[in-house]
Amino acid sequence: MSLVIVGSIGLDTVSTPSGSVIDAIGGSAVYGALSGSYFTAVNIIGVVGTDYPKAALEILARHKINLDGLEVCEGKTFRWTGQYHDLNKAETLLTELNVFADFAPKLPASCSTCHSLLLANIHPALQMQVLKQSSSYTHLACDTMNFWIKDCPTELKEVISKVDIVFMNEDEVRDFTKCGEIFSAAAALLKLGPKLIVIKRGEYGSVAVSKDELFFAPAYPIVPVKDPTGAGDSFAGAFMACLEGHQELTPALVRDAIRYGTVMAGLAVSEFSIDGIADLKRPMIDAYKERLCQMSR
Amino acid sequence: MSLVIVGSIGLDTVSTPSGSVIDAIGGSAVYGALSGSYFTAVNIIGVVGTDYPKAALEILARHKINLDGLEVCEGKTFRWTGQYHDLNKAETLLTELNVFADFAPKLPASCSTCHSLLLANIHPALQMQVLKQSSSYTHLACDTMNFWIKDCPTELKEVISKVDIVFMNEDEVRDFTKCGEIFSAAAALLKLGPKLIVIKRGEYGSVAVSKDELFFAPAYPIVPVKDPTGAGDSFAGAFMACLEGHQELTPALVRDAIRYGTVMAGLAVSEFSIDGIADLKRPMIDAYKERLCQMSR
Repeated sequence: MSLVIVGSIGLDTVSTPSGSVIDAIGGSAVYGALSGSYFTAVNIIGVVGTDYPKAALEILARHKINLDGLEVCEGKTFRWTGQYHDLNKAETLLTELNVFADFAPKLPASCSTCHSLLLANIHPALQMQVLKQSSSYTHLACDTMNFWIKDCPTELKEVISKVDIVFMNEDEVRDFTKCGEIFSAAAALLKLGPKLIVIKRGEYGSVAVSKDELFFAPAYPIVPVKDPTGAGDSFAGAFMACLEGHQELTPALVRDAIRYGTVMAGLAVSEFSIDGIADLKRPMIDAYKERLCQMSR
Repeated sequence: MSLVIVGSIGLDTVSTPSGSVIDAIGGSAVYGALSGSYFTAVNIIGVVGTDYPKAALEILARHKINLDGLEVCEGKTFRWTGQYHDLNKAETLLTELNVFADFAPKLPASCSTCHSLLLANIHPALQMQVLKQSSSYTHLACDTMNFWIKDCPTELKEVISKVDIVFMNEDEVRDFTKCGEIFSAAAALLKLGPKLIVIKRGEYGSVAVSKDELFFAPAYPIVPVKDPTGAGDSFAGAFMACLEGHQELTPALVRDAIRYGTVMAGLAVSEFSIDGIADLKRPMIDAYKERLCQMSR
């Protein structure tokens, strides 16, 4: 029983009002895997170049993340350069795909008996390739971003129709469904097939929408937010990891998963790069979650 | 034991994406008083012109709202004309003060033994006049708006320093404190004297900040929002009414007051003018509140 996360593995150059980092450890799969590793065994599927820092691999290994699905290709690792003037909105300055340009994700044999799959933010065509290899999984989920919504909505729609859980932020939900009001937008997404839509609202928290239920969680109050990069990936990684061992998406399970996702997202943005989530202890995470519960019940 | 609300009583001409109304019943004191009347006895302090509709007075009387503090002056009633392109932001087209221009609020004898006071959104100088007449009250609260923050920040600051509870929306908190991050902004407001800052965040709900506690509540999900006018006033009226009979602002009391405030704000925006809150039964309000609890615990 474990969680498989497919996504980007990269080096981020980021500037925010709190400072900046150059070629820092990043990528949707890395944030998701580190975050999920506090709750279950995690397998990472992705690609890096020969320049990928050994220190980063050591951090993943220290978290007992299975690297069987990590390809190392001749060339440079994927790089993203971005800045945040407004902490709610990333501005991409440069994307260098490098070895990621020819990535064709393959699930290794060691992932054949896994429980859940998180398709972190990558091209919907790649997400679809993975879905075709993962028919035995109990919980399938996808994340995405504005770029794919604009450029390949048809492929994204196909992915959404095949998963159980969709993670999207508020603007993405509105853009994809062309519906300004988020509850109607979520209803439109549910009609495509998923059981649960988790709408991320940045500093305002999140709302989970199923056919029968709404659940709201506030964001964990973090002052200052140093670097918003990876918040959504950390949220989704922890959320999916919390589903391990459960067959049904019960309301109680969804609440717990959202709260842990919220805590990990909060810790992620409290430091640059992965520094907020790389060295935690589970009792500390549980204490944050308890505090989050107290602030909303 | 009862609640005194001082504020505007007016006729609103409002246009929203859902439709429009002309000279409809409105005003901060009216929304607050109707909303609060489901929880305790309410006294309204304000002024109307001789053109104020008898039907409106009958609605207030039906809710057993004490009108001893309602002055009727020769002339026209206060009028506000506004529109909402974005449901989160009112755009004022016209404000006609009329009889409100010379209003000098006076607490009648029947209000001398009341428990709580809500200074709804009016000029801070008028709010201060009332505060000087209300030294015996247990809970003092004020609301305000961007206009006073810009035009008379010093007078507003004096009012804030004399009350226990401040209701402000997120932008107002930022503008008044010149602090972009709301938790730091709330801390700055608490330093002026109040025990509790209730920050309203529109469709994202609200957060209450005291020296020791944070409490988040989502907004009640209403689809469609027909007319946002009076949401904040309805929230504050219900919140203050829920404090009746209590000496201390305990966390449990604040949570209950915020949830009832949230429900009344949701019901207010579900119809134009006061139509969403004029004909309710308490068990229905309690059922909404229970549903709100379920969606966030």
